[in-house]
Amino acid sequence: MQRRSLVGGVIASAFALRAAAPSWAQIDPLPSWNDGPNKQSIIDFVARTTTSGGRDWIPVPERIATFDNDGTLWTEQPMYFQVAFALARVKALAARHPEWATVEPFRSILADDRAQLAQLGEKGLLEAVAATHSGITTEEFRQVVVDWLATARHPRFNRPYTDLVYQPMIELLAYLRANQFKTFIVSGGGIEFMRPWTERTYGIPPEQVVGSSGVTKYVMQAPDKPVLMKEPKVEFIDDGPGKAVGINQFIGRRPYFAFGNSDGDQQMLEWTAAGDGLRYMGLVHHTDAVREYAYDRDSPVGRLDKAWDEAVRRKWTVVSMKDDWKVIYPFEIK
Amino acid sequence: MQRRSLVGGVIASAFALRAAAPSWAQIDPLPSWNDGPNKQSIIDFVARTTTSGGRDWIPVPERIATFDNDGTLWTEQPMYFQVAFALARVKALAARHPEWATVEPFRSILADDRAQLAQLGEKGLLEAVAATHSGITTEEFRQVVVDWLATARHPRFNRPYTDLVYQPMIELLAYLRANQFKTFIVSGGGIEFMRPWTERTYGIPPEQVVGSSGVTKYVMQAPDKPVLMKEPKVEFIDDGPGKAVGINQFIGRRPYFAFGNSDGDQQMLEWTAAGDGLRYMGLVHHTDAVREYAYDRDSPVGRLDKAWDEAVRRKWTVVSMKDDWKVIYPFEIK
Repeated sequence: MQRRSLVGGVIASAFALRAAAPSWAQIDPLPSWNDGPNKQSIIDFVARTTTSGGRDWIPVPERIATFDNDGTLWTEQPMYFQVAFALARVKALAARHPEWATVEPFRSILADDRAQLAQLGEKGLLEAVAATHSGITTEEFRQVVVDWLATARHPRFNRPYTDLVYQPMIELLAYLRANQFKTFIVSGGGIEFMRPWTERTYGIPPEQVVGSSGVTKYVMQAPDKPVLMKEPKVEFIDDGPGKAVGINQFIGRRPYFAFGNSDGDQQMLEWTAAGDGLRYMGLVHHTDAVREYAYDRDSPVGRLDKAWDEAVRRKWTVVSMKDDWKVIYPFEIK
Repeated sequence: MQRRSLVGGVIASAFALRAAAPSWAQIDPLPSWNDGPNKQSIIDFVARTTTSGGRDWIPVPERIATFDNDGTLWTEQPMYFQVAFALARVKALAARHPEWATVEPFRSILADDRAQLAQLGEKGLLEAVAATHSGITTEEFRQVVVDWLATARHPRFNRPYTDLVYQPMIELLAYLRANQFKTFIVSGGGIEFMRPWTERTYGIPPEQVVGSSGVTKYVMQAPDKPVLMKEPKVEFIDDGPGKAVGINQFIGRRPYFAFGNSDGDQQMLEWTAAGDGLRYMGLVHHTDAVREYAYDRDSPVGRLDKAWDEAVRRKWTVVSMKDDWKVIYPFEIK
């Protein structure tokens, strides 16, 4: 039984790989993308880099593709979902922290005082993240994330946050993997906030998720029972130049394909573009206020300004959600 | 042509995987290991964890195996090979650093003053490593490592350092991979010192190498030409408790199988052992002064003391190079 399904899987893979020749276009590997130059540029890139003997062929082990997460693979409005998680955690933990009733930013969070919270800005949010992402073990934290995702709902769509992933990008990830690209997330978001669900949601296993992280400390909780305790200290910020640093440290190979959506992804794309041979750099532009959100140069969340100018100057792909994507979310086609 | 070799490869893989059932034992996946309880314990572990429907079966994506490098996969005497590299770099760079003639540890290194160097101890060596591993880009550093490995020779064996890998461990890595374990290095050594050669030597790609690292800085060297500049500052030390931290940060899954050889691997094995289900913890004990080296509790390099006691107490495998291994190095059988 195992042997049979294994061989079946192997044969299916072989066919998928054979299909990776230009004839792919006939099957349409990206059915949620409207036909046009952006979709075509992806298909052309994959065809050129996977055609044996071609000038742009990339050896299989070097086929690395990196994706930002917030705003590139799932929605990031009206606030980063990890921030929504941190705010919910403050409320869940308030009973254990009576002092929070009078200390900012906790007071504002507990009182739903959005005006005051906005005044406290990013620094206030980072304090809330640090406080709610520490003092527990990595395994406990994982469970907290899983439990929150199971019940939390997005304020506008009234759906689980993991429903708000982009169908066209899910197809793109699968298309690249079918062509033997190894897909990675390289996100400013917390590595331990993402890993519990990226494998099921995107098909990206924990060991291919690069992100920001806090310091963890090895503690012997009981005889022969070590845990890693999360501390309220930053270990690594995987954003901006940190994305090139993170790619080098965690992956150790330069991507041939990279997609982002904001100025925080600019250096990842620059780092990708600086490699030899054919490379693909793409940005998702949030242009669809009806089906998702519309924002760019002036948005405090996911600002797209300098990276956009550079993309235009260097002829990188800028995907318009409104024009390039037939559907945004998987639930639209279910 | 591509299709044909692809399908051939796929079929070969399928057979390799079929062979992964208990009948493996008939083929002997570990020919350089002497028969005995240690070899048998490995084969039993793999059979039990890969038998579909068995109580100890591990889902394929969770089959993570981690290996220390120095002293576990290759030799680490008479000094860590990366230290030999750093000393050679001091000599290669001396012309550009006239001030080194009078400043320690450089003076002693340049004068081959081993007595004085021994006095300077680990701190002196770390200074030499920091000085020789910084001030250049990551890509330049990679080339320096490749060039050094191509010409440097081990003082006792008069062979390239990459010849001094352990044949039985190479077989173990391949055996685990044939059974769909993903093999990682988790080493106190420098991540950028290892990645240039681990794929060819061990079949372990850069993205599966975890190690110590220095800070790198994203610098625009020319318009649209970013580089990562290596700075003389430690980013992460992947040793001792740091190995559990590094496994969590870089891999994000707990290993089911881990092998080390020294006290620096103790926490990696403890972290592995603390997971649910059947896990395998192993140590290489350097017992063969004739074919390699013999050292343990009193060695400044690769000390095996506390981890050995714990292994005995918890019945982890302790491999004796002298008794368990038919050959040490691949060149012995070529």
